[in-house]
Amino acid sequence: MNAFVHVAREAAIAAAAASDRRWRENKPLSSVDGMTIGVKDIIETEDMPTGQGSPMWEGSQTRRDAASVQALREAGAVILGKTVTTEFAATEPLMPVRNPHDTTRTAGGSSSGSAAAVGAGIVPAALGTQVIGSTLRPASFCGCVGFKPTFGALNRSGSFDHLSQSCLGILAATPEDAWTVASAIVRRVGGDPGHPGLDGPILAPTARAPRRLAVLQTAGWTKASAAAQAAFAAARERLVRLGIAVEDRRADPDLEGFENTIAEAVAVSFRIFDWELRWPLGSYVRHKGLSEALRRRAASAQTLTLDDYRQALRRRQEIRAQHAWVSARYDAMLTLGATGAAPVGLSWTGDPVFNIPASLLGVPAISLPLLADEGMPLGLQLIGRANEDADLMATAAWVWQSYPSD
Amino acid sequence: MNAFVHVAREAAIAAAAASDRRWRENKPLSSVDGMTIGVKDIIETEDMPTGQGSPMWEGSQTRRDAASVQALREAGAVILGKTVTTEFAATEPLMPVRNPHDTTRTAGGSSSGSAAAVGAGIVPAALGTQVIGSTLRPASFCGCVGFKPTFGALNRSGSFDHLSQSCLGILAATPEDAWTVASAIVRRVGGDPGHPGLDGPILAPTARAPRRLAVLQTAGWTKASAAAQAAFAAARERLVRLGIAVEDRRADPDLEGFENTIAEAVAVSFRIFDWELRWPLGSYVRHKGLSEALRRRAASAQTLTLDDYRQALRRRQEIRAQHAWVSARYDAMLTLGATGAAPVGLSWTGDPVFNIPASLLGVPAISLPLLADEGMPLGLQLIGRANEDADLMATAAWVWQSYPSD
Repeated sequence: MNAFVHVAREAAIAAAAASDRRWRENKPLSSVDGMTIGVKDIIETEDMPTGQGSPMWEGSQTRRDAASVQALREAGAVILGKTVTTEFAATEPLMPVRNPHDTTRTAGGSSSGSAAAVGAGIVPAALGTQVIGSTLRPASFCGCVGFKPTFGALNRSGSFDHLSQSCLGILAATPEDAWTVASAIVRRVGGDPGHPGLDGPILAPTARAPRRLAVLQTAGWTKASAAAQAAFAAARERLVRLGIAVEDRRADPDLEGFENTIAEAVAVSFRIFDWELRWPLGSYVRHKGLSEALRRRAASAQTLTLDDYRQALRRRQEIRAQHAWVSARYDAMLTLGATGAAPVGLSWTGDPVFNIPASLLGVPAISLPLLADEGMPLGLQLIGRANEDADLMATAAWVWQSYPSD
Repeated sequence: MNAFVHVAREAAIAAAAASDRRWRENKPLSSVDGMTIGVKDIIETEDMPTGQGSPMWEGSQTRRDAASVQALREAGAVILGKTVTTEFAATEPLMPVRNPHDTTRTAGGSSSGSAAAVGAGIVPAALGTQVIGSTLRPASFCGCVGFKPTFGALNRSGSFDHLSQSCLGILAATPEDAWTVASAIVRRVGGDPGHPGLDGPILAPTARAPRRLAVLQTAGWTKASAAAQAAFAAARERLVRLGIAVEDRRADPDLEGFENTIAEAVAVSFRIFDWELRWPLGSYVRHKGLSEALRRRAASAQTLTLDDYRQALRRRQEIRAQHAWVSARYDAMLTLGATGAAPVGLSWTGDPVFNIPASLLGVPAISLPLLADEGMPLGLQLIGRANEDADLMATAAWVWQSYPSD
């Protein structure tokens, strides 16, 4: 699959042995003590290089652990290796990762290797990041859980993914694993400096049936495959049969208004993304090894002014306010994790259109691998409210438990 | 003085020659084209190592420019060298910098070398950072202007000073130079990701007489030397003679209430600072080369919980709200830049107590070297309102011009 760019074999074996001793002595450091974890290669590690998915930085030793990695080591977790990322966690899969469920297909991106490693069962959890659709999309494609918390909820210091929508994301085998890893991080190093950090219990919140869910079609709906739409419709009917009210734009004009607004999410996100990439791309364009795609993005950034950026930030704030207003009447919004199965081929990591709304909104989102398309996994996505990650996780746990385990 | 840790002699000469050509052809890139600038050694530079003032990182090549440095190069400025910082921009002067006005005294810190280089007239401007008192205190000690903008107003990406009160600061010969450098940065790389960035004109705002200033005594008042207090009183009388209303706690009970609140600034700031240093100090304690002072701080951080941190953030928010309410009735608040002259000796960089309020508040502040104590420079500090940096600068320019030039 090409999921890992580096494996810390000796260090991992030693860390696992130390964890075994702690468990035997009944003195585990945390509930993730001994859990093997992959780390996206955009996140710094003291004992392994951080290549950022770019030939410009291949083998680069930053000689320190990111906040998340430090916290997980303190909690006793075993850092197994660095997982492949697209170039600078953006769009280009310079080291393509194969999908564990069909190796002719992409694993998605940018957290490609983390999703593939979890989807293949190599590790129960891995760290990713998301600024556009980089955690939930590959999770949907690779058949694992993808959790992107509220913006700022997990300390991303020491990650090279540092834009104003960037979040540390967790890829995991189950919602509980995703929460436990996130919780182990926040209790040791907090959220981003100045943010209160992920709020909720140490262990995963207890499953709780939602009373009312909203279907969010987003701009991606017309791009979704027929089978993906059918799978979503069946999931919706299933929830209704279980007693959950699942409403859509036909029942709630305010929801329809929000859907019309959120159609702008792609354009607004990429305007913000482009401006924020003036640095470091403005320097990197002088060097070989930068992809043509990022050169075009750097050129596009040069056409923007600071006032354009400020206008995009204001628009983002308005959209967030509208979401806060409409979402208050639902336990969560329900949509697809991706437009369908992972695309065949390795040169494109797929369309992030279903993931951009939660990224733009800065709210928590989780993709559960409960649907299928073309015989491949497909995620059912739940989107929550800012700082109410624990409520979203309780709803997700209930939905997860309502499906029979394989 | 030991102001520079590295000088890029050849690159600076080449950059200066290129700038000369542009000016001769009447095609300067900006108003800072050709300006020589020092860069605090906590900020990354592509062509020079970034040592962070620590033997752990001495000679470390990060191989990229920070956002501010990239922007200044794009604007044609000449990056002369890296200036000495205290260890990790915190308290310990592991490479002591001598004061240009009396080499038996400290230059202050943590932006020690930047303040000394500007104070000595080696460069007209230098980049510093401030999370506690690291730009305005050394500016006061070294006889230069120190400008700390609103939190987030200048993009600090690529600086290792990344706490929730950290700002890029400018040390400069005049208020105009400080503004012009800041403006050149923000127009090219914006503020911190997600922030609107420094607001105001490209060139320095026109001097404008304030109508009403508030004296802010802060918790530092009792620590200020008698001569510093006398110098401040004389400056106040001078402003009154020039027709400015300068009020204090006796005239405004709300101002007195705010002064009582801001007395907590030191304790709240250090609680936040300590928690936020859990990373990376939590890893660094395993290595040699970390000072005892930072080891103690790391140990103190371990006694804090995430809830303690959240409580400190909430208190900071309350204090900011009280400041916003009281400060609306004044053009600026007026106080000292430091407790007095730079202390004799090189093992301590002086007391930041006068600089912590603006740091905690996240509001702009500027120190003007207009006072004296023990025959040494002493700053007159003006503190403004969040995002109203240009208004503060217009007031500062007027105060500056009201003093006779040497």
